[in-house]
Amino acid sequence: MSDLTFKINASSQSPAKTSVKARNFEIIVDEPEGLGGTDLAPNPVEYVLAAFAGCLNVMGHLVAKEMGFELRHLEIDIKGELNPAKLFGKSDEQRAGYKYISITLKPDCNADHETLEKWIHAVEERCPVSDNLQNRTPVKVEVARQEFAN
Amino acid sequence: MSDLTFKINASSQSPAKTSVKARNFEIIVDEPEGLGGTDLAPNPVEYVLAAFAGCLNVMGHLVAKEMGFELRHLEIDIKGELNPAKLFGKSDEQRAGYKYISITLKPDCNADHETLEKWIHAVEERCPVSDNLQNRTPVKVEVARQEFAN
Repeated sequence: MSDLTFKINASSQSPAKTSVKARNFEIIVDEPEGLGGTDLAPNPVEYVLAAFAGCLNVMGHLVAKEMGFELRHLEIDIKGELNPAKLFGKSDEQRAGYKYISITLKPDCNADHETLEKWIHAVEERCPVSDNLQNRTPVKVEVARQEFAN
Repeated sequence: MSDLTFKINASSQSPAKTSVKARNFEIIVDEPEGLGGTDLAPNPVEYVLAAFAGCLNVMGHLVAKEMGFELRHLEIDIKGELNPAKLFGKSDEQRAGYKYISITLKPDCNADHETLEKWIHAVEERCPVSDNLQNRTPVKVEVARQEFAN
């Protein structure tokens, strides 16, 4: 199968608010007031959890179909915990991001326990977002200055 | 500083469409038709890039302020490439998620080159989303069956 490329373009609307274009869609990202934002939209780390949930839903249905059972409905609870000290430049003792992410999948289906165990394993293993979070993902950053106003 | 907990609750609206609640916000996740969805919203891996952009914007402004230069505007382009073979159960040869994520930051500011280099380094190092993608994040998955209809 050929590689797929996904891309976004983002523009700062304020120090904590970002407008992101993904194809023909706009995604607004903000922060709660307590984290310096205007609280008009979910924040970046909430979007990470939302992306994870969306990916688990797709994979959950795909794998259930392959395994031959009907997934009538799927609810997903996800939480994560992070310490903001590194983000705010107060301490390097703890990592900047989520220390862990905890997921509860609530499938409405008639698969037996053993089938469900195989299902979870395949869903987690084949989910792109799960892979990118659980394993290292290479990130390249470059700067292209927009304007020289000095 | 105390740990912060973030959480979402998600519900499948179709095999590829998910409604996610994060606090008082709703995030819709879907897939393009070519990936089995109804193309009503960005897909999970696009939300990962959007989350990354939103986080870089927050960190970019925070670090610029600390370093004493004015960031008038920030544009961010992000792209990533993945091979869907593992996702679709066709092959295990390549990883499921992004093989790399490539970012171009376009700051409008009057900082000199050396200052900008320090800025990028701190932004990348302290950004929670960057940390969760570039380093392994522990994920715990459990299943709580919703209904026994068999």
